[in-house]
Amino acid sequence: MYIGVDYYPEQWPRERWQEDIPLMKELGINVVRIAEFGWSLMEPEEGKFDFTLYDDAIAFMEEHGIKVVLGTPTATPPAWMAHKYPDILPADVNGVTISFGARRHYTVNSRTYQYFTKRIVEQMALRYGQHPNVIGWQTDNEYGHEKSDRSYAEEDRRAFQLWLKEKYVTLDALNETWGTVFWSQTYTAWEQIPVPRKVYQEHNPSLLLDFDRFCADAYNRYNRLQTEILRKYSREDMFITHNFVYTDLALNQKEMAKDLDFVSFDNYPVWGGLAEPITPAEIAHHHDLCRGAKPGKGFWVMEELIGAQGWSRIGYLPRPGQAKLWTYQAVSRGAEAIVYFRWRAAHFGTEEFCHGILDHDGVPRRKYREVKEIIDAMNAFGDEWIEAEYKAEVAVYYDVENAWAWNIQPHSDALTHKKEFLRFYSAAHSLNAATNIVSPGDSLEGYKVVIVPIYFLTNPEFNEELKKYAEAGGTVVFTYRTGVKEPSNVVVDTTLPGRFREMAGIEIHEYESLQSVQQNTVVGVSGAIEGVESAAKLWCDLITPTTAEVLAVYKDTFYDGTAAITRNRTGKGTVYYIGSAVEAGMLEKLYAEIFAEAGASTLPSPEGVEIVRRTGKDGKVFLAVMNHNADSGAVVQLPAGRWSCAVSGTTYERELQLDKLGSIVLVTS
Amino acid sequence: MYIGVDYYPEQWPRERWQEDIPLMKELGINVVRIAEFGWSLMEPEEGKFDFTLYDDAIAFMEEHGIKVVLGTPTATPPAWMAHKYPDILPADVNGVTISFGARRHYTVNSRTYQYFTKRIVEQMALRYGQHPNVIGWQTDNEYGHEKSDRSYAEEDRRAFQLWLKEKYVTLDALNETWGTVFWSQTYTAWEQIPVPRKVYQEHNPSLLLDFDRFCADAYNRYNRLQTEILRKYSREDMFITHNFVYTDLALNQKEMAKDLDFVSFDNYPVWGGLAEPITPAEIAHHHDLCRGAKPGKGFWVMEELIGAQGWSRIGYLPRPGQAKLWTYQAVSRGAEAIVYFRWRAAHFGTEEFCHGILDHDGVPRRKYREVKEIIDAMNAFGDEWIEAEYKAEVAVYYDVENAWAWNIQPHSDALTHKKEFLRFYSAAHSLNAATNIVSPGDSLEGYKVVIVPIYFLTNPEFNEELKKYAEAGGTVVFTYRTGVKEPSNVVVDTTLPGRFREMAGIEIHEYESLQSVQQNTVVGVSGAIEGVESAAKLWCDLITPTTAEVLAVYKDTFYDGTAAITRNRTGKGTVYYIGSAVEAGMLEKLYAEIFAEAGASTLPSPEGVEIVRRTGKDGKVFLAVMNHNADSGAVVQLPAGRWSCAVSGTTYERELQLDKLGSIVLVTS
Amino acid sequence: MYIGVDYYPEQWPRERWQEDIPLMKELGINVVRIAEFGWSLMEPEEGKFDFTLYDDAIAFMEEHGIKVVLGTPTATPPAWMAHKYPDILPADVNGVTISFGARRHYTVNSRTYQYFTKRIVEQMALRYGQHPNVIGWQTDNEYGHEKSDRSYAEEDRRAFQLWLKEKYVTLDALNETWGTVFWSQTYTAWEQIPVPRKVYQEHNPSLLLDFDRFCADAYNRYNRLQTEILRKYSREDMFITHNFVYTDLALNQKEMAKDLDFVSFDNYPVWGGLAEPITPAEIAHHHDLCRGAKPGKGFWVMEELIGAQGWSRIGYLPRPGQAKLWTYQAVSRGAEAIVYFRWRAAHFGTEEFCHGILDHDGVPRRKYREVKEIIDAMNAFGDEWIEAEYKAEVAVYYDVENAWAWNIQPHSDALTHKKEFLRFYSAAHSLNAATNIVSPGDSLEGYKVVIVPIYFLTNPEFNEELKKYAEAGGTVVFTYRTGVKEPSNVVVDTTLPGRFREMAGIEIHEYESLQSVQQNTVVGVSGAIEGVESAAKLWCDLITPTTAEVLAVYKDTFYDGTAAITRNRTGKGTVYYIGSAVEAGMLEKLYAEIFAEAGASTLPSPEGVEIVRRTGKDGKVFLAVMNHNADSGAVVQLPAGRWSCAVSGTTYERELQLDKLGSIVLVTS
Repeated sequence: MYIGVDYYPEQWPRERWQEDIPLMKELGINVVRIAEFGWSLMEPEEGKFDFTLYDDAIAFMEEHGIKVVLGTPTATPPAWMAHKYPDILPADVNGVTISFGARRHYTVNSRTYQYFTKRIVEQMALRYGQHPNVIGWQTDNEYGHEKSDRSYAEEDRRAFQLWLKEKYVTLDALNETWGTVFWSQTYTAWEQIPVPRKVYQEHNPSLLLDFDRFCADAYNRYNRLQTEILRKYSREDMFITHNFVYTDLALNQKEMAKDLDFVSFDNYPVWGGLAEPITPAEIAHHHDLCRGAKPGKGFWVMEELIGAQGWSRIGYLPRPGQAKLWTYQAVSRGAEAIVYFRWRAAHFGTEEFCHGILDHDGVPRRKYREVKEIIDAMNAFGDEWIEAEYKAEVAVYYDVENAWAWNIQPHSDALTHKKEFLRFYSAAHSLNAATNIVSPGDSLEGYKVVIVPIYFLTNPEFNEELKKYAEAGGTVVFTYRTGVKEPSNVVVDTTLPGRFREMAGIEIHEYESLQSVQQNTVVGVSGAIEGVESAAKLWCDLITPTTAEVLAVYKDTFYDGTAAITRNRTGKGTVYYIGSAVEAGMLEKLYAEIFAEAGASTLPSPEGVEIVRRTGKDGKVFLAVMNHNADSGAVVQLPAGRWSCAVSGTTYERELQLDKLGSIVLVTS
Repeated sequence: MYIGVDYYPEQWPRERWQEDIPLMKELGINVVRIAEFGWSLMEPEEGKFDFTLYDDAIAFMEEHGIKVVLGTPTATPPAWMAHKYPDILPADVNGVTISFGARRHYTVNSRTYQYFTKRIVEQMALRYGQHPNVIGWQTDNEYGHEKSDRSYAEEDRRAFQLWLKEKYVTLDALNETWGTVFWSQTYTAWEQIPVPRKVYQEHNPSLLLDFDRFCADAYNRYNRLQTEILRKYSREDMFITHNFVYTDLALNQKEMAKDLDFVSFDNYPVWGGLAEPITPAEIAHHHDLCRGAKPGKGFWVMEELIGAQGWSRIGYLPRPGQAKLWTYQAVSRGAEAIVYFRWRAAHFGTEEFCHGILDHDGVPRRKYREVKEIIDAMNAFGDEWIEAEYKAEVAVYYDVENAWAWNIQPHSDALTHKKEFLRFYSAAHSLNAATNIVSPGDSLEGYKVVIVPIYFLTNPEFNEELKKYAEAGGTVVFTYRTGVKEPSNVVVDTTLPGRFREMAGIEIHEYESLQSVQQNTVVGVSGAIEGVESAAKLWCDLITPTTAEVLAVYKDTFYDGTAAITRNRTGKGTVYYIGSAVEAGMLEKLYAEIFAEAGASTLPSPEGVEIVRRTGKDGKVFLAVMNHNADSGAVVQLPAGRWSCAVSGTTYERELQLDKLGSIVLVTS
Repeated sequence: MYIGVDYYPEQWPRERWQEDIPLMKELGINVVRIAEFGWSLMEPEEGKFDFTLYDDAIAFMEEHGIKVVLGTPTATPPAWMAHKYPDILPADVNGVTISFGARRHYTVNSRTYQYFTKRIVEQMALRYGQHPNVIGWQTDNEYGHEKSDRSYAEEDRRAFQLWLKEKYVTLDALNETWGTVFWSQTYTAWEQIPVPRKVYQEHNPSLLLDFDRFCADAYNRYNRLQTEILRKYSREDMFITHNFVYTDLALNQKEMAKDLDFVSFDNYPVWGGLAEPITPAEIAHHHDLCRGAKPGKGFWVMEELIGAQGWSRIGYLPRPGQAKLWTYQAVSRGAEAIVYFRWRAAHFGTEEFCHGILDHDGVPRRKYREVKEIIDAMNAFGDEWIEAEYKAEVAVYYDVENAWAWNIQPHSDALTHKKEFLRFYSAAHSLNAATNIVSPGDSLEGYKVVIVPIYFLTNPEFNEELKKYAEAGGTVVFTYRTGVKEPSNVVVDTTLPGRFREMAGIEIHEYESLQSVQQNTVVGVSGAIEGVESAAKLWCDLITPTTAEVLAVYKDTFYDGTAAITRNRTGKGTVYYIGSAVEAGMLEKLYAEIFAEAGASTLPSPEGVEIVRRTGKDGKVFLAVMNHNADSGAVVQLPAGRWSCAVSGTTYERELQLDKLGSIVLVTS
């Protein structure tokens, strides 16, 4: 298993290499990622190339038995380029040009930038594509990060119009699809179509969604431009990956993954200014997304947080044990390599408060010892663990196009796609149900339950798969605002939930959007949630059951008594519909019942304790048990049998005590 | 009486017309407004005109006995125009050009846009000006909406300079009036004068006020450009109107009304993102403004909310009964026709979440039934009700120039003109006193009381009218910050309240501006408010009475004991001065006393219940009783006599029970 | 002693001069400042000069025995200039040009503006440099105010590049110093270097700090351009000053002071929109800064607040007595002349709500009487008081470069340099310890205690002075985040507190940044703070003492028990280190102990009561006692001996009663 660090040889005098690399070796590091911000070193002036520094660094690593992943340096075009070719620069929604001075100051649609990209990538590929110590490539760095996913410059406008022409062929088709008859927006020449810069009110939602698709597609094309060159010149066994960040950007991770050997992920549960880490469920969701981006493949964590991070604001300091916890979580959910960010904090530049394994003074201390402990542990059982299977019985639908549609029209001041997705994902996570993310194109066969959160923008392929799945006996959980939109982002003309009416056995005749200051109440009337009350926030679908039975009703306002949650038997399957944003307490009770009925396994655990099960070919079970609580220990009930610690061999039965932020991997013994 | 819907035939296939129009007929609809966003259909390319769709739609309506109001389509210039003639586009305060892609993306000062406007309006007028089924015109749509009231483009700068030259003739006059000697702003050429784009601090307040006047005037000229063409080609009996929105925009509704046959109003008590409707008093104020814009004329509600509304955010869902309530309120206060917005929700475009009588699925349900009930009711007594007189005994001053002056210099973070106007208006509304809005130019004769809220920017004509009125025995209620400014937006050089010192019998020697975190206390010392305490917010005038008597004093800080509310007998009249923003409770008690003394009628009602009285020529009294409370019914004490429901004939005496959101029109029987 | 008013003869008809000036005389006014916004009067068109108005005004003042300070008018370039030469206009961070229409609409880097500046200043200097009634000059007005300190226009970019070339000589030196190897920012031509306009993320912190230095330097050069001309043509005894505002701007007050005879200050404890005055300690800090800007010199308050102030928002109304209180405070801390802003409120222009001694109606009332009382008092003892010595035993470090570094990287959402500086300054102020501000270049000799708040960006000269001082027996108080940065704004590579480790006897191995929602707890374990608890906010340095003793420890989270406050004996001196932002209560107890041990005098007083001691050559002690509480009187314990009021002669012993906002100067009798 590869465990490494992100290293910046260019930021340190060579004498320091001679201290750093032995320290890395002592830790057990076997890989470094380098070079992803090195363009001005590699091409100090236009067309003049100089790879001396990286040649030497790679050689030095090789001497010490450390492999290298090389990043292409295109996230940071050099000053000479930005100055001489300002058409590479992106623009914001007001048309303000983004200045040189930080990073990602380019638009992928710039033809000039594409030219320079091709040249530098080719130069790198020629030089290192056959290098025995280089094991793979990372293209660019964190596409779309820092609001660089959408650019509104002239080059973008030109490219958007071409993209639309490719997609729609005729203006009639575009006008018809977008409904440009509304507000007299009919386009009679491709040149008339704007990028969605500032307007007095809001743009056509179909244009906005296509603009997001275009942005994502432009990034994919730009990435492909790099991968094609890299593949052409590289050894067969070299991999190509890209390190993604976050979700819901105008990027299509799943689509881009097709051009990669596997995806990578930069795992920062905290960042500059964040007072607390994001929730364990959100981290888990990110891992699930990565694992699902390229089914059958694991992923790399190309940057794993080890110290406090920040630009001008510095975030939460990771506590003792937290690095191990987050590493275990990542590997348990599919990571096959971990690269810590970064070896040592830089003394200069925007990221000088991004703390690494070492701080500015370069003295190994707590974090160094923690990484040592992790690496020793992974050396003991990591490879075997990674080979063991993560088997999901619950699928959770996620499609970035649906996220875009929501973010274009969030309905309420309190609604974001991410938060609502997590509402319906987290209840499964709390039950320690093993989940996979599924997207249009994926098969649902074999899953016990499929959760389909806020399925607003529908996808024909996924619609079909869902129907087939339910008819064949599957269990589907729909939520509020299901089936509202066609892929073109126009509203369906059938009664909601649109094409799922029959499946769900309901009709929605009215609904109410709730702002952050408003709420209604839902009360359970049947089954596990009978008598349970929950606030109903953000949205209330007023459900008229046709064939469905009522599990919960609304309590307040004029729709007191109206159905809020229903269950329908359809074909051999069962379809739930949750009409409002109810609270975790109610959702977890409901999910527990649904999962039990569908035969999907769960594992009880105290709040904040995550358990992930993997099974080896020989039937050996790995149980990662992780206490995310920073302030309290936990007592966890273990599944039947005897368990032993994968590192120490200490055995446990029935019960396991974990310190705050404690984590352990148990194996059947 | 006309009751109609806003309809967009261009948004639906013609087959659907054949379903829609019969459904409308069944409802009792007798008018539709169409075409106001249809430019790209009418002029699909520059100079090529095609009216087929509207020809057909009008004909189809005619067949079904439904009259048509035609909107000119100038709120949405087509894509070909914006692309070829970017000088039609407006700019924001930073000089950022507003993009094509939504609506209102033009500046009225663009000579190019004026050219295209004239041509399309003339084409429409030629085609439909004599059409027997077209009863009138709406110019454009919601001038100034969505911050389109102020534009800062080059064309605007040019026009502003011309407008100033017209107004001031000489630069000396302008410099003198604006006080440009301050901060060395003396202009020595018209070309030097800026539109008020971003500065480091704040612009000269006299320039800002003139810029608002200019913007309003530019819209009026632009509208007149349309009305002159329409009148030239139209039948005598065709009306011309415009549908206004909101108040306090850089628009002069009253001035524009001179070019219209009557004004129209788009009545949206809730909108995208609003969690609650605006207050009943605010809606009433809008109706009063409309009625007052063209004295002696009623107005149309050209868009009356029927379903939840929103662009990307969806607002409050109107409850059962609320459409009827708001319709009754509008008609009771002067509306002579109601057009519901809109027939059916669109499937595409920015406004796809503007719900109509029908929702996206086109199935008639609750809202359809509610409109049916309203139309049936109005058919029973609407015409007679509209003919009955709304007789106001209380006048409330409103001048948009004063609103502009306040919004240029709001004094406190918590002060907006609208909110403060409503403070002093709402107390009269709570007492169900019949109010008229009066503006400079209106006569005050015949009113029992004139309320003059925050009369900051004075108007010579209105000053004279006020003095005459008070001397002749009228009752005037002034509030804090009266008489501060000359029409040029410079401060008067006399002791405050300036020219009203003698009338009010007071002098203001000191005052204090209070931010949102601050307040003082006012306590009544005489009459109805004796012993009543109220928070004193936003502003405290420290009053030195000369001839006035003291009704209330301040309690806290160094001006403890200083007069806060006074009454002065002057000529035959009485003048009140309320020196601070006191609470509704105190204001209502004070107003009740003032109105009683002045002989202005009030009608007691529970909180949230509005009663509007109208009297027919035959002495028949109509009493619209409306319970705006969404959560509770109300028991209303009726005036003496027997009353019967105008629809059902059910009789009531002494007491009337209303459900939550219940509304009824009673007539004397 | 000079006591005067800011007067704008150009804003009033000449007849009014004849009322105003006698009224001033009656008050005791002996100086006016005029002309600082008069450019369009002096140069009504390009190259045509006309000084008639100011000639007459100065002559009129002379007749009445009132001296004149003349402002150069460069804060307000005329309209003709902005229109004809738009390259004088500044731009914001988005590149948006700041419009003509307010003030300060120029960039000091504009060569055109430098040309016009030289000409107008030369014209003024030629005309008035020898005028017997003109006693001095004020250059421009409030440099940098209203965000005019940083401009991002093309002229600024050009000048920034030149400035960098001057500073670094070679690009290699710049690249090395800034660490441009980070993110591929290596510059290969000076023209490539941007001004820090909008980027996707954040600029290089070294570039940002140099940009602030450049902005400050550009202002200094611009000011020197004026002072050199003024000096050339003026009488020897004429002074040159500039009126500063606020702190932490991209201005270097101390550096600019070198070109001035003394600094002036515009003292506005409240301003438009402020609900409460800033704290007494903050005002005192401003006075200390002014006094320290030019050691050995007093300063002028060129604008002293007398009435409520505001542009579109109007701030707190100064209470009776408050003007006297603030005047006493200013003089007690070093002001040698007081000029009240302004004589009378203007009727027009952006500042029409800046109230003066007279309000808009020009009638003398409360404020006039208060100023009369102050002037009478100052006439009684002011000159003697000013000559008495203000002797500080406590030095508080302030360097604007450190403030810039903090504001570039504030670490936490709740941290601003100003607030944190005041945290550590205010505790000394509460104890009425006499403080001086010290900066790099100042000697620390003679101080009993030196407080060095948040010494993040170190200065080599000051570092040396500190070490020398501590070794020689001084007492140094360091706080969290000491010694982090080199002057280039890169992080030191030694263990923190960097070069102060040995001095402080500690090492910082970990630290935590806290956002506004977070806090830890500190509890004292030794000395005066034993058992005292305080919230620990913003930042926690986890201290590992080497030779230091522990005075307080943290209580919560994983570093419970870790040292938070320490004391170290080093050489003959003592060094404290306060590792977190603790509360005033704990700080005051700690300071009291530190000051007592070091022999620095303090004076106990009730909260909100400030006492400032000055000592005359003859040993006569002046004690200014000022109750800043607006809501309560105070009983103050006096130092031993008999005291008498400097005005009335009333004697006091042991105890003094002050009304709310009461102030008095006592002298030993």
